[in-house]
Amino acid sequence: MSRDKYTVGADFGTLSVRAVVASVRDGSIAGSASFTYPHGVMEKDGFALADPKDYMDGLFKVIKEAVSESGVSAEDIIAIGIDATSSTFLPVDAEGTPLCEKQGFTGRPHAWMKLWKHHHAQPEADELTALARERNEAFLARCGGKINAEWMLPKLLEIYREDPEVFEAAAYFSEAGDRAVWALTGEMTASTGPLGYKMLLSESDPSVSAEFLEAAEKGFGRVLLKLPERRVPLGQTAGRLKEEAARRLGLAPGIPVAAANIDAHVTYAVTGEVKENNMLLILGTSCCTILLSREFRPVEGAFGIVKDGVYPGFYGYESGQSAVGDTLAWFAENACGKNIAEEAEARGLSVHQLLTEKAEKLKAGQSGLLVLDWWGGNRSILADSSLSGAIFGLTLDTRPEEVYRALIEGLGFGLREIIEAYRRAGVPVEGLYASGGIAAKNRLFLQIYSDITGLTVRRVRSSESSALGSAIFAAGAAGKESGGYSDVFEASAAMGGLKEDVITPDPESSAVYERLYGVWHDLHEKLGRDEASALKKLREMKG
Amino acid sequence: MSRDKYTVGADFGTLSVRAVVASVRDGSIAGSASFTYPHGVMEKDGFALADPKDYMDGLFKVIKEAVSESGVSAEDIIAIGIDATSSTFLPVDAEGTPLCEKQGFTGRPHAWMKLWKHHHAQPEADELTALARERNEAFLARCGGKINAEWMLPKLLEIYREDPEVFEAAAYFSEAGDRAVWALTGEMTASTGPLGYKMLLSESDPSVSAEFLEAAEKGFGRVLLKLPERRVPLGQTAGRLKEEAARRLGLAPGIPVAAANIDAHVTYAVTGEVKENNMLLILGTSCCTILLSREFRPVEGAFGIVKDGVYPGFYGYESGQSAVGDTLAWFAENACGKNIAEEAEARGLSVHQLLTEKAEKLKAGQSGLLVLDWWGGNRSILADSSLSGAIFGLTLDTRPEEVYRALIEGLGFGLREIIEAYRRAGVPVEGLYASGGIAAKNRLFLQIYSDITGLTVRRVRSSESSALGSAIFAAGAAGKESGGYSDVFEASAAMGGLKEDVITPDPESSAVYERLYGVWHDLHEKLGRDEASALKKLREMKG
Repeated sequence: MSRDKYTVGADFGTLSVRAVVASVRDGSIAGSASFTYPHGVMEKDGFALADPKDYMDGLFKVIKEAVSESGVSAEDIIAIGIDATSSTFLPVDAEGTPLCEKQGFTGRPHAWMKLWKHHHAQPEADELTALARERNEAFLARCGGKINAEWMLPKLLEIYREDPEVFEAAAYFSEAGDRAVWALTGEMTASTGPLGYKMLLSESDPSVSAEFLEAAEKGFGRVLLKLPERRVPLGQTAGRLKEEAARRLGLAPGIPVAAANIDAHVTYAVTGEVKENNMLLILGTSCCTILLSREFRPVEGAFGIVKDGVYPGFYGYESGQSAVGDTLAWFAENACGKNIAEEAEARGLSVHQLLTEKAEKLKAGQSGLLVLDWWGGNRSILADSSLSGAIFGLTLDTRPEEVYRALIEGLGFGLREIIEAYRRAGVPVEGLYASGGIAAKNRLFLQIYSDITGLTVRRVRSSESSALGSAIFAAGAAGKESGGYSDVFEASAAMGGLKEDVITPDPESSAVYERLYGVWHDLHEKLGRDEASALKKLREMKG
Repeated sequence: MSRDKYTVGADFGTLSVRAVVASVRDGSIAGSASFTYPHGVMEKDGFALADPKDYMDGLFKVIKEAVSESGVSAEDIIAIGIDATSSTFLPVDAEGTPLCEKQGFTGRPHAWMKLWKHHHAQPEADELTALARERNEAFLARCGGKINAEWMLPKLLEIYREDPEVFEAAAYFSEAGDRAVWALTGEMTASTGPLGYKMLLSESDPSVSAEFLEAAEKGFGRVLLKLPERRVPLGQTAGRLKEEAARRLGLAPGIPVAAANIDAHVTYAVTGEVKENNMLLILGTSCCTILLSREFRPVEGAFGIVKDGVYPGFYGYESGQSAVGDTLAWFAENACGKNIAEEAEARGLSVHQLLTEKAEKLKAGQSGLLVLDWWGGNRSILADSSLSGAIFGLTLDTRPEEVYRALIEGLGFGLREIIEAYRRAGVPVEGLYASGGIAAKNRLFLQIYSDITGLTVRRVRSSESSALGSAIFAAGAAGKESGGYSDVFEASAAMGGLKEDVITPDPESSAVYERLYGVWHDLHEKLGRDEASALKKLREMKG
């Protein structure tokens, strides 16, 4: 009987990179390590930049540490999988060197790695959307009718216009995940996942054409030549661990490195299930929703519908909300009375734990508060990153825990709005999976989501999400012969799984939320859609 | 040359009573004292009650202490003036004993003193408004077309319905100020000021009739018999200090006690001016505005227009906002991150001082925030105490000082909305006076008000407001022969006055606020007026 085999999954988050060593048998974690990027996110005036060196230093460090912590021998580690936030990408030269590390480019913002939450390309996104509508581009049906500022495409146009020298000097624009694959294998590839979602380029689906790009701006069609030519489908091997990297990591050279994936998408593998019309929520700083279906139907608010985009053989529908954990963190930091902070400290609780404890005692609708959850803009349905949030119903009696609960409810109504759009389009959502930090820590949050959507919520078993997902994809890419699985489905069924405890809607709360949702939806339409709405005017006037 | 003469002014606030001993010559304060009501405000479910014993104990205590502190001899104190919040009133028996102090009534909320901010009679207010409109009652023109829940009239109907035994047992319903006059003089009177504003009863103006009251509820017309028969006009003497009270206070028996006034109205005397079409703002927990005009014109939002109601010979126009200082205090306590509290403590500043310092550095409109200021409902224009506040434009970058400034701006837009209503009605507002705690402490607040209204703001010189106003009215009532003045105008000119420093609008900020006000006004109409608005639906659903 052969010894247990393991795979490594590495996940580039917004603030840190994390690696796990997972058992191929059952997905249990043998070792893990994290590394916070020393330069964090450099944010200013809609820009959100990162230092690619942080990412590369971190990648080698966390894999090495996770392996060391696991105590697993190098020969039992059979593959590596990578995922990253998206679209987080950087310009590199023909040798793979980031432009920002090259003389003459260090001081230029566009030469650096741009994070998904860089929102400065909103004008380009709006313009590309308008152009695509004018031209009646078929790809619009698979991106909710709008091009989002968080994607690669508008950010590339932004670079093309704002810093043409960076654009010209770049041999490739490389997603953070693909760039990590390059560092491990020496292969410059582009995973078809991010490419399908964030560049609207896909073999099986309507895509952007050079003609469309040229219509956007003369010369911009050449951007297609600045994407790596080798495209690797999800679930496949992108390359083999190169000697030098293997030496640095203390791993066996030649083991497969799977096609890089998007951090949210890779999480689907952690559920252990492949069920159509069940929506996975990845609840972190933002919320990404993933739904699988054999059928293609245009859904408003599904900003990415890509064949084979999450799993081979399925359309992967992606939607989301821009600021979920971020909004609650903003509240705890900036908008919550000091009495709460003091009580939490005295009782040895986090502010979130104390607020949750107090908010749990409130009933649905009791506070008279309602929140439009657009602290980070709106990602699905309205797809407008410059929208802002609003709180209604404040009185002199309003307590912090009431606002906290109302924020969670507002986020829940935001999800409900997305689910309604799926329903209208003929893609009914029949159940929810939850993963991510909030899913693990805050049952009230999930109960409110269940009450507002009327759906059961099942949580992933593992507290690891993306990194384990990448380890599962690695096991699928490794193949049976090396001790892995014949595909990602087999790998997921063995290594993923759900908790037994199922969260079901409370009928009384659901009834109240049904009425509140009506009020919420009305505000969503009036303040979010109408171009003359107060929120849009405020944005215009903002300094 | 005779020695300087002095008057006493006593002011019943919401949480405490205050007395001053003021020089008749120039209004300078020789002594003062305050007393916080031991039982405070008993608030629950829209009820706001007080203990009349607190008021009476406090009255004697503060007058005695203020006189003692002043070192002025009893024979040099020539008169006493009283004012109180309004409508704050209580039921008393024929001997003047509060019902709540009598056996069988102590446990009954309606037997206690009801504060102005008791909002539980909103249904009665709405109903009386509807009835008056149906009957086309002429008094509607002098109350902005709506009967406000804070007034005596709807609260009396509430008592009549909810506790008929209290209603029957009451010989009189007495305003807190009149009740204090009774305690000092033994005379049960009703000052025509509060009566005109809060009961819509006036000799010179259209008033409520027994017929109207009977139409509201059979038998309720008898309420007119439960108001003191002796009506005393403002500026006149209501009675003379009785022996027993003089003994308790150590003052000369027989000195005049002026007709009780409303705390806000009496403040006008502190400006030292009598200028038509200039609006006085009394900026405390709430904001009351007072404007004098020789002419009567119905103004939406002027919820009280009473001939001789503030000064003899003028129509006194009253408007206001329910929660001004209260809203900022709510923010500092409940909705402001702990970092602010910590920084304020470290620097020895109050939270308000620190927030103001930070907010001062922001420009108009810069934060992208906008606030509807209805934390305590809306008093003028919409006259709906159950409306609630809203904040628009929140993002992950929103800082506490931005919200603080937006709250002040929201309050400023609320005032602007009132001023616009005066303008539309042909009563242009030409300048602002400011008094009250915020006026003394927060120059930024007044600058924002000036920028938003486009008007100059002049502050009263004295840091005393209502209590000094009452001392001025006392000096006018005392008459020239006793060392006072022949009327309140003379008294005010001598004892009141303004600061030399005038606050004028900044053109740049004004231009921004002009645009923001357009957005604000639109929200005011959509969310405040429309019966199907989100705020109204939330209120209905509130637990």
